[in-house]
Amino acid sequence: MNMIKAGIIGATGYAGAELVRILMNHKEVEIKWFGSRSYTGEKYADVYRNFFEIVDMDCMDDNLDELAGEVDVIFTATPQGYLAGVLNEEILSKTKIVDLSADYRIKDVATYEKWYGITHKSPQFIKEAVYGLCEINRDQVTGETRLVANPGCYTTCSILTAYPLVKEKMIDVSTLVIDAKSGTSGAGRGAKTPNLFCEVNESIKAYAVASHRHTPEIEEQLGYAAGEEIMVNFTPHLVPMKRGILATEYASLNKKADGTYPTAEEVKAVYDKYYAKEKFVRVLETGVCPETRWVEGSNYVDINFVIDSRTGRIILMGALDNLVKGAAGQAVQNMNLLFGFDEAEGLTMVPYF
Amino acid sequence: MNMIKAGIIGATGYAGAELVRILMNHKEVEIKWFGSRSYTGEKYADVYRNFFEIVDMDCMDDNLDELAGEVDVIFTATPQGYLAGVLNEEILSKTKIVDLSADYRIKDVATYEKWYGITHKSPQFIKEAVYGLCEINRDQVTGETRLVANPGCYTTCSILTAYPLVKEKMIDVSTLVIDAKSGTSGAGRGAKTPNLFCEVNESIKAYAVASHRHTPEIEEQLGYAAGEEIMVNFTPHLVPMKRGILATEYASLNKKADGTYPTAEEVKAVYDKYYAKEKFVRVLETGVCPETRWVEGSNYVDINFVIDSRTGRIILMGALDNLVKGAAGQAVQNMNLLFGFDEAEGLTMVPYF
Amino acid sequence: MNMIKAGIIGATGYAGAELVRILMNHKEVEIKWFGSRSYTGEKYADVYRNFFEIVDMDCMDDNLDELAGEVDVIFTATPQGYLAGVLNEEILSKTKIVDLSADYRIKDVATYEKWYGITHKSPQFIKEAVYGLCEINRDQVTGETRLVANPGCYTTCSILTAYPLVKEKMIDVSTLVIDAKSGTSGAGRGAKTPNLFCEVNESIKAYAVASHRHTPEIEEQLGYAAGEEIMVNFTPHLVPMKRGILATEYASLNKKADGTYPTAEEVKAVYDKYYAKEKFVRVLETGVCPETRWVEGSNYVDINFVIDSRTGRIILMGALDNLVKGAAGQAVQNMNLLFGFDEAEGLTMVPYF
Amino acid sequence: MNMIKAGIIGATGYAGAELVRILMNHKEVEIKWFGSRSYTGEKYADVYRNFFEIVDMDCMDDNLDELAGEVDVIFTATPQGYLAGVLNEEILSKTKIVDLSADYRIKDVATYEKWYGITHKSPQFIKEAVYGLCEINRDQVTGETRLVANPGCYTTCSILTAYPLVKEKMIDVSTLVIDAKSGTSGAGRGAKTPNLFCEVNESIKAYAVASHRHTPEIEEQLGYAAGEEIMVNFTPHLVPMKRGILATEYASLNKKADGTYPTAEEVKAVYDKYYAKEKFVRVLETGVCPETRWVEGSNYVDINFVIDSRTGRIILMGALDNLVKGAAGQAVQNMNLLFGFDEAEGLTMVPYF
Repeated sequence: MNMIKAGIIGATGYAGAELVRILMNHKEVEIKWFGSRSYTGEKYADVYRNFFEIVDMDCMDDNLDELAGEVDVIFTATPQGYLAGVLNEEILSKTKIVDLSADYRIKDVATYEKWYGITHKSPQFIKEAVYGLCEINRDQVTGETRLVANPGCYTTCSILTAYPLVKEKMIDVSTLVIDAKSGTSGAGRGAKTPNLFCEVNESIKAYAVASHRHTPEIEEQLGYAAGEEIMVNFTPHLVPMKRGILATEYASLNKKADGTYPTAEEVKAVYDKYYAKEKFVRVLETGVCPETRWVEGSNYVDINFVIDSRTGRIILMGALDNLVKGAAGQAVQNMNLLFGFDEAEGLTMVPYF
Repeated sequence: MNMIKAGIIGATGYAGAELVRILMNHKEVEIKWFGSRSYTGEKYADVYRNFFEIVDMDCMDDNLDELAGEVDVIFTATPQGYLAGVLNEEILSKTKIVDLSADYRIKDVATYEKWYGITHKSPQFIKEAVYGLCEINRDQVTGETRLVANPGCYTTCSILTAYPLVKEKMIDVSTLVIDAKSGTSGAGRGAKTPNLFCEVNESIKAYAVASHRHTPEIEEQLGYAAGEEIMVNFTPHLVPMKRGILATEYASLNKKADGTYPTAEEVKAVYDKYYAKEKFVRVLETGVCPETRWVEGSNYVDINFVIDSRTGRIILMGALDNLVKGAAGQAVQNMNLLFGFDEAEGLTMVPYF
Repeated sequence: MNMIKAGIIGATGYAGAELVRILMNHKEVEIKWFGSRSYTGEKYADVYRNFFEIVDMDCMDDNLDELAGEVDVIFTATPQGYLAGVLNEEILSKTKIVDLSADYRIKDVATYEKWYGITHKSPQFIKEAVYGLCEINRDQVTGETRLVANPGCYTTCSILTAYPLVKEKMIDVSTLVIDAKSGTSGAGRGAKTPNLFCEVNESIKAYAVASHRHTPEIEEQLGYAAGEEIMVNFTPHLVPMKRGILATEYASLNKKADGTYPTAEEVKAVYDKYYAKEKFVRVLETGVCPETRWVEGSNYVDINFVIDSRTGRIILMGALDNLVKGAAGQAVQNMNLLFGFDEAEGLTMVPYF
Repeated sequence: MNMIKAGIIGATGYAGAELVRILMNHKEVEIKWFGSRSYTGEKYADVYRNFFEIVDMDCMDDNLDELAGEVDVIFTATPQGYLAGVLNEEILSKTKIVDLSADYRIKDVATYEKWYGITHKSPQFIKEAVYGLCEINRDQVTGETRLVANPGCYTTCSILTAYPLVKEKMIDVSTLVIDAKSGTSGAGRGAKTPNLFCEVNESIKAYAVASHRHTPEIEEQLGYAAGEEIMVNFTPHLVPMKRGILATEYASLNKKADGTYPTAEEVKAVYDKYYAKEKFVRVLETGVCPETRWVEGSNYVDINFVIDSRTGRIILMGALDNLVKGAAGQAVQNMNLLFGFDEAEGLTMVPYF
């Protein structure tokens, strides 16, 4: 059987390297292009030595026009604005693109430009791009789809954790507060002083408070579910670990028609309605809190909730590996949908403890 | 000059060891009793080898009656219920006690018994006990005081971070959500599988959701400030670090008489009103988020806030070292007040980076 | 195609859990027995929640006689002395055993009993047991083999790193010093104070100096290679990480017949002679030092060396994942040999960065 | 009483910041100059926020000529070659200098230039410089001394651990192998990819094998003790922790006149001969291995040894905090000697657990 060919632009970032790790064990794909502007010409396995004797190729440049003619799918794990700056109709006519950056995630250009502080260079493709949160938009990622906007790490976690309750109007979305905690791989591989081991270990901090760029993405997607525009508080934190995101979310429960609050069983039933058949979403048993270690290295999202009958609030918790379900794993899941492969192909890694 | 004499019950727990560390450099105190039920008869420096050639004494038992006659002050860094079970009038007539457990923190016995799941053995002393959050109750910790209930780690951080805004009614306390993150020393030195290095490193989780025992303590104290009974959501998380607590708090701002929200300057002014002269509370400069590493090893609490004008909420952040300001440091601060020493004596350690 | 059936005794230890992780993705095996004395009757996925919705079975007891009749192979990831105490001819007549403990590794009973401080209960099987260091003893692990003594973690790393040079008499084995560093999973999952996060993080120590039980195992195996009895210094260290072993080894180079020292090329050629065709041994490129992160989660051993012409010594370095190549991975590699499967089946995980 | 005035060049590196931390609690010194080429003009407390409300001054440039006229002592925590490039007689006539770089540590210029790969710009001051390993060279650090070469971190640990045995010829120095492990603060605060949290955590590696610059410094100083030129193998390793160095050293014991090896008591007696009265060197009790956590934040070096009677070797272990006794603490200890203060002033911090 013929394998499809894939190219990766940004193959030496953390998400790019995770794409390589996953695709190396994918039966239907071979990687033909390890794009890396920083390491062009160097052996890929010299940059990530875990691939020694596994990947023999050198890093290549990021010529998207050329690459489009050579591969069936391109993953762009690139800085914000890069893909928007180079994408054109000819590229999209030749190949499919799964974009791990934010360039085509947000439908409203003005919102994108305001939060990202850059001018969008190719807004004409935004409408076409499918927001690839597979569990929600699976039907839109098909053989016809040319461009997938792969969701952000915080957003995947934040949205999937709250989605069924928002969709079923079980919570008052105007009260939604998302307190998220991430490992440092989310900050990328750039050499910056605040990300040094000595600065990160044995410390925790919030950052980008009330201003993080994943906020409008969460608001847009949960807004679709709510059927109205919403605004949330989203606060990311940096945790001294390499991988993992935990989102703790707070919202007031809506009362039922009879004036009482929904029970835990009723909330669980709503989660089951949306996720019972989802392979990669695990709603945990009563009383078990998600922990990032139980999903590490895998494509799973673990979710659970606690009702606080004293305050009338519900506390939601979701955990995932930011580099897998939060980036490369979901990108491969989207690729599987694009090409009609088994959606879980290449993604059955048991969480790595 | 005569030094006062101190005894520590529970000297081999993490808070106990931190008490020893602090008191070794305190000019006015000498430790006469290293109480430890688990290690009685062993050299203290064999349990904590950092004290090799610094502390020569053995661990002793926890005979409070005997100890009361020998020292001027006793620190009890003991499990919940211990002190309540042994305290009596004779002990209090001979010595002062700074209790690091929760036994006398909560004024309402029923609340204590409900959240802690134990019967209070000596409720007659609850009223007398002063809740030793020095920055708020300083005036009540005097030479007359016999019993100080030293606040909990999460509570010290949570309360100090929100106190001025609650007191001045700048926030709607019914909307207050506290998302707290702690290093693992807060879990104590007991040998439990979930606290092993391999279980804790590279992971984060919430625990005791909607049921953590520090909740009623926070509610009681902030309720005094608010002038009404309040209920909050408090969610603790375990972070892969040894020390440090970060509390991120969310609340809706109250509008002013003119219908507008308070400005950042107005919020800052309220913090300054309460904390400008406080040595151990540092309200950071605009835009700087507290990080636990900047307070580690010290008695400081670092606090700051961000107003989200989009949602009308304010995000408060507070950071402290759970073993110092959250336990042993504050206990020494209370001792200084009890004996009329300089309140900062022994507590001027520069945060240890 | 029929899968073989496997049972694991000690499935809830770290090595046992890693066996489960690896075997879940092995095409030829299904696990029929999750033995765990501590958790008998509990759901396996409640002990290791990464297996939630992946493993449905409960933990079972450790009845080896019964188990032998039900499975084709038993992995014993059990404390020293356990297997020796229960093994009998009938069990071995029904099933194959891969023993991850030390019970049958050391051929000399007196040596075993001296270093382990226990009486060997079934020395009659020692001779039959094959020491399953696959790269060296592959030919002895066949369909006829009934009992494999799976090598220790430190020993696998220490031996493979030095083996070619010892075998070819390039180094003076009487000068061999092995300084090894291990993550804390090597200490097991037992709840002991010294293995708590707060005791391990931000610290390093040597332990069991000149007395570690892996010493005689290294000496025996390298002695076979040397063709003489040897004694080495082996010093293990505990490093604040979960997985990984790095062995740094020092020895004087033997001079060649012409009185000169071997060159780096000559040393490399000796490594290549033994390892060029070995999938799981990667001799790195000149100047590249092994790092445990590049082998984490995989069955690889990364090896390299530096000649110090000033002192006439060679410094050897080897890195592996103690739970994979140092335990569960090598056990599966042995199982593959026992049943004639592809030796790498189930073991092609890319190292997990 | 008048305090002396100190200036720090390189105040924003890790060693520089530790100097500030220590000097803030030193009774006899005030810091007048926070030199930092990278941060000139910025508030020092904006670079290290632990000093918020503790240090009010801005970072200044590194004008040594000007500074010399204003302070009594200058600490240079600067890159190799900096001080050698700017030092002159006029500066030394006005102020004392404690140099934390390697510029004046090695007496043989050719050796310095070979290992450091730079030309020494002011070799005329090398002879005058005193190698400030206080426990060994205390008598040479006096009021007359103008220039102290503060020892390196690895070297302080390596030398102090072996010194008495070398001096008393108890070990065969030609067999000495030093395997050292360091936290990442030793790599400095420069933003380099290999020092990022995600690259360092959960990994260990050797580096600079057979080529680390501290090697000739160790050889020179131990050579003085041995009374002959010596060569050692020194191998540094990077450990996932912030602070701490552990040196594990191996050497063959010399036999006594009667043909037997020295006993543990005899070895201990030799250590005591040199260190019994040393405040900052703690020779541990029999069987206790040094751990970096027990010296963290303090000026102590913890040392112990194990004799392996099987191999005739002795294993020595030494642990210190690389930023304190390995850098800033020892620099202050030298300053105390230079000005006739109590040698331990400012250095009585209890190790921070």
